[in-house]
Amino acid sequence: MLIEPSYPKSFASDNHAGIHPTVLQAIADANSGDAPAYGGDDWTTAFERQVKLVFGEQAMGFPVFNGAGANLVSLALPLGRYDSIICPETAHIACHETGAAERLLGVKLTAIATEDGKLRPDDITERLHVLGVHHEVQPKVISISQVTELGTCYTPDEIAALADVAHGAGLKLHVDGARLANAAAHLGCDFRAMTTDAGVDVFSFGGTKNGAMAAEAVILLDPELGTAVPFLRRQSLQLASKMRFISAQLTALLTDDLWLTNATHANAMAQRLVSGVADLPEVDIILPVESNAVFATLPRDAVQTLKARYRFEYWDERVGLVRWMTAFDTTPEHVDDFVADIRKAVSG
Amino acid sequence: MLIEPSYPKSFASDNHAGIHPTVLQAIADANSGDAPAYGGDDWTTAFERQVKLVFGEQAMGFPVFNGAGANLVSLALPLGRYDSIICPETAHIACHETGAAERLLGVKLTAIATEDGKLRPDDITERLHVLGVHHEVQPKVISISQVTELGTCYTPDEIAALADVAHGAGLKLHVDGARLANAAAHLGCDFRAMTTDAGVDVFSFGGTKNGAMAAEAVILLDPELGTAVPFLRRQSLQLASKMRFISAQLTALLTDDLWLTNATHANAMAQRLVSGVADLPEVDIILPVESNAVFATLPRDAVQTLKARYRFEYWDERVGLVRWMTAFDTTPEHVDDFVADIRKAVSG
Amino acid sequence: MLIEPSYPKSFASDNHAGIHPTVLQAIADANSGDAPAYGGDDWTTAFERQVKLVFGEQAMGFPVFNGAGANLVSLALPLGRYDSIICPETAHIACHETGAAERLLGVKLTAIATEDGKLRPDDITERLHVLGVHHEVQPKVISISQVTELGTCYTPDEIAALADVAHGAGLKLHVDGARLANAAAHLGCDFRAMTTDAGVDVFSFGGTKNGAMAAEAVILLDPELGTAVPFLRRQSLQLASKMRFISAQLTALLTDDLWLTNATHANAMAQRLVSGVADLPEVDIILPVESNAVFATLPRDAVQTLKARYRFEYWDERVGLVRWMTAFDTTPEHVDDFVADIRKAVSG
Amino acid sequence: MLIEPSYPKSFASDNHAGIHPTVLQAIADANSGDAPAYGGDDWTTAFERQVKLVFGEQAMGFPVFNGAGANLVSLALPLGRYDSIICPETAHIACHETGAAERLLGVKLTAIATEDGKLRPDDITERLHVLGVHHEVQPKVISISQVTELGTCYTPDEIAALADVAHGAGLKLHVDGARLANAAAHLGCDFRAMTTDAGVDVFSFGGTKNGAMAAEAVILLDPELGTAVPFLRRQSLQLASKMRFISAQLTALLTDDLWLTNATHANAMAQRLVSGVADLPEVDIILPVESNAVFATLPRDAVQTLKARYRFEYWDERVGLVRWMTAFDTTPEHVDDFVADIRKAVSG
Repeated sequence: MLIEPSYPKSFASDNHAGIHPTVLQAIADANSGDAPAYGGDDWTTAFERQVKLVFGEQAMGFPVFNGAGANLVSLALPLGRYDSIICPETAHIACHETGAAERLLGVKLTAIATEDGKLRPDDITERLHVLGVHHEVQPKVISISQVTELGTCYTPDEIAALADVAHGAGLKLHVDGARLANAAAHLGCDFRAMTTDAGVDVFSFGGTKNGAMAAEAVILLDPELGTAVPFLRRQSLQLASKMRFISAQLTALLTDDLWLTNATHANAMAQRLVSGVADLPEVDIILPVESNAVFATLPRDAVQTLKARYRFEYWDERVGLVRWMTAFDTTPEHVDDFVADIRKAVSG
Repeated sequence: MLIEPSYPKSFASDNHAGIHPTVLQAIADANSGDAPAYGGDDWTTAFERQVKLVFGEQAMGFPVFNGAGANLVSLALPLGRYDSIICPETAHIACHETGAAERLLGVKLTAIATEDGKLRPDDITERLHVLGVHHEVQPKVISISQVTELGTCYTPDEIAALADVAHGAGLKLHVDGARLANAAAHLGCDFRAMTTDAGVDVFSFGGTKNGAMAAEAVILLDPELGTAVPFLRRQSLQLASKMRFISAQLTALLTDDLWLTNATHANAMAQRLVSGVADLPEVDIILPVESNAVFATLPRDAVQTLKARYRFEYWDERVGLVRWMTAFDTTPEHVDDFVADIRKAVSG
Repeated sequence: MLIEPSYPKSFASDNHAGIHPTVLQAIADANSGDAPAYGGDDWTTAFERQVKLVFGEQAMGFPVFNGAGANLVSLALPLGRYDSIICPETAHIACHETGAAERLLGVKLTAIATEDGKLRPDDITERLHVLGVHHEVQPKVISISQVTELGTCYTPDEIAALADVAHGAGLKLHVDGARLANAAAHLGCDFRAMTTDAGVDVFSFGGTKNGAMAAEAVILLDPELGTAVPFLRRQSLQLASKMRFISAQLTALLTDDLWLTNATHANAMAQRLVSGVADLPEVDIILPVESNAVFATLPRDAVQTLKARYRFEYWDERVGLVRWMTAFDTTPEHVDDFVADIRKAVSG
Repeated sequence: MLIEPSYPKSFASDNHAGIHPTVLQAIADANSGDAPAYGGDDWTTAFERQVKLVFGEQAMGFPVFNGAGANLVSLALPLGRYDSIICPETAHIACHETGAAERLLGVKLTAIATEDGKLRPDDITERLHVLGVHHEVQPKVISISQVTELGTCYTPDEIAALADVAHGAGLKLHVDGARLANAAAHLGCDFRAMTTDAGVDVFSFGGTKNGAMAAEAVILLDPELGTAVPFLRRQSLQLASKMRFISAQLTALLTDDLWLTNATHANAMAQRLVSGVADLPEVDIILPVESNAVFATLPRDAVQTLKARYRFEYWDERVGLVRWMTAFDTTPEHVDDFVADIRKAVSG
């Protein structure tokens, strides 16, 4: 059944985009007869090797289906029965995964209010006095997102500072890297600077928002957390039988810096959008645009007008706050058309 | 990176096969620009419609990533905090999902020994005396597999008899239909006869083993279990952001009876294999071959010889019991070569 | 083995007190030969009857071991797999039960900052926009404490207002009534005014802090939540085999208003303590004293001096905030001695 | 309220008995003013010391409310997210705790059919082939009951053999010792011979069935499992605030061998009952009577006649199987009257 696409370019989320042609070709190329199931195939082996090249020899990569799954498996590794996670209030694990952490891991999330989606070392240290008090859950993991859910990025130094606090108190540092590529593109650094070199212990590595069909991975840097991943991935419903098709997607993104090309382009389109509305007094960009997300307030009438034609998220209706998001396949024309319509909408 | 396939045709599992070309084309066709995420797309709507055509108007279809995920979400629907599942000892949920039911649902599985992987009404009735006893978990779901893990099939009447027992006692009937297509092909009935018409309440519908890349679905027939699926699918890590690519796979299988063509072929290849070894006194087919799985015992030396060249499962080493499995893409030549090698191996 | 008591009167918690003589006598009286286990005894029947007298005909009482257990069983009743609890940040379930709600119930607590430990209707209404959004947990229970963990009390009208908001949105209202007696004594109302008549659905009723040895109960007012308690109490490790000895304690407290005598006395001792230090400029009573807890700030040197002789809680060392708590057996002399020592300590 | 005891001596369970006078006196003695809550009291310290005297220096004792609680906390210690427990099908944790292990611990119980309630080393070894297979839960704890639920006892050597198998494969051995005293009395050995010296890692130590009101303990012998107990006890709803009253009960039982006196008497009463019916051809004692439980079959008419006057458990109605149980306070007269009535009932 051929369905005619009926959707204009979306600014709602980078997961409204389709599959990058190179990734789709990689899936087709991997469809060459039989292969062992559950990761015992050559494509997964190739991905595992590439993970070591990109993140360092100690890094172990485990493909999974989606970002929530990558987070869950990553967090299950260090967390015991009475441990807790400290994370920003805006964390995906805290507010967009329908309580998976509480239900499937049985842990408390201590969610901290932030201005910009980023935790600071002080947020951690002032919550460590409960360590050893047996009436309270014990902080065990600091979980941050890079890019944050508010589109901002931690510098490698900021991540390292959190890792230091974590390790100093016997905690682990987890990064939800659903948009790690966008952060690397923004910061102009490689993946390793933000992860291995910064002291991260385990992270979720996202492919889907970067052009894959459905491909994420748990990347484990702390060998102490070692042998549990295969069991936890299976139990957490994240073990693909025909895993080669996930591995091939991830490898395609990591080959010839396709991930960087895609992320750089998406980020650039966000900047183009910002530039296009910069002179409009009615449009206020309220957060630094450090990736492919633009958070802006504008008159609520204008939002309504725009919503009739475009898909984007109404972040907070009370204050006219919206999120506009670009993707690897957003074109300058898409942006320019959108900008033109924003200008019309606010001039009312 | 192009990886040269290095694997001979596997008889280990139908998930060693790749993607059927029509399914892969359906993925490519769905890659036509943007689409809303999380199932708000036209391909998912089309799948939902097709589910109603195939299974009846009350049927609701929910795409998920894999079979363990389909089982988990299906079972989460009726199960409360002190409920239990009655299932055969060989059930996939009981012995191949690393305790996901116990960990993620928190329920007890009462696993019943069977000869052929099939539950009978008496297996249920003799365990219902605990209903109302508050020191014991309360049976709430009967879970069977069609095809069973031993390659056998329930007739629609056998399923209906279990449904009657279940409903008479206030229980629900779940079917793990990872290979439902193979059962329909074997029984010569349509899907509805085995599910909706037989009184099934909820089932897991498998695409992956039938030729998809990764595509399964929860099919809900009992409207009482209604609105919870989206929440449970999200929480259970089974919500694909780019869902259209799962829906498109499922729809491709359900279109023009591709599912039937694939399953009929796989079953026929299993029969061809059986026929090829039928006259060998050293090879004993120990279970009815009612799908694409052949359970056979043969001399352990012969197993070793064959294992050096072929992939298949050694089900029980102590008695030389093996499982040989065919797939949609197993060719007569594959089977004939394998048969020839079996004959050589047993003749020593 | 007779252990000589080596402890001065504690101001740390009302659970440092022993057993009221009448309660101890009730235990001894119930020790009259055999009785059926698990609640099938006459003492439990008597308690169940008394619950109906005190709280209304629809009220059902279920004895349990401790307050955390009463909370857990109460909350398990209405909460499904993707539901959440809205509660104050200071709630016992949120910060003193080592994550039991998250671990044993698998639910998220949405903990709300308050000045005085009390939720207001607006705290709820502004969090209800997530209802129906399947990426987010669904608020299902509002949980408050009466007396709050900060020693304050809700009026019956305030509770009724919360119940209205809850019921209007399909939520349930739970009360952690570990010190419900102290609230009733303070408010001068009966138990029913604060619970049944105010629209509470289920609550934890505390005996231990009121003079019992170890006796709490789940009191269920909403018949919809009905038959699950015996199963959940057993599963939650809260089913006493020799239940008569818990029931007898609870009945003793409810007989001849012993609960009121005990709570009134404890509250009066807190007021005596407040009066004794009212004129001291160095001692600041920072919260209304509406029960048997006094929250005060005083110079940290003075706290140190007092801590050398007395047990009480250092609530926040950074600001010299302490909690002083009285009990049913605190005497005027205990208070006067303590006041004298406080006066000495602050005059330093 | 004084309730007149209306119950004849029960043969249903040793938890139908009341409190031994010495234990009740110990509670009264401990009611001497204030004491720190949550175990920071002298009575708990005294119990902890006594545990070391009885079970060895490495033994750590933790009072809890009930047997299900002791089991849960004990098992939580070694069990990770994908681990399982091997236990007899008749285990209390498997069939009388409403699925607490599955719900609260999230683990699978592999329940093994036995003739006499006792596991043998072969039961374990033949299930260890799944170790390392990531599709299956990993056996981590062997849990046995001493006395078993069928009234039989392991010899210390039999326990040691299980411990050897367990430790050889990296597993831990847990004992549900709700009736450990009865086993020691039967075997004529001390507690240490069956626990510490036999290689047990952690066990539940029962006081309630031996004459306490409600007093059990987790006894930890494996220092590797160390610091987690206070957190797990709190989270598992098993932390008594006025803990001194539990500790005092346990200490009373361990003082002057009261536990042994009580258990020896209960066991002797069971033997008296067996002797009283030994010559009756209609009464068949079907299991060795090695504690205070007698399992017998007798004509179903006779069971009905007896049930009209006495409380005891109808273990399996289909075959006229009953369980008769004695307690510390069962008198020879109680037994003789019961025997007389049995004789009348079977002679019809």
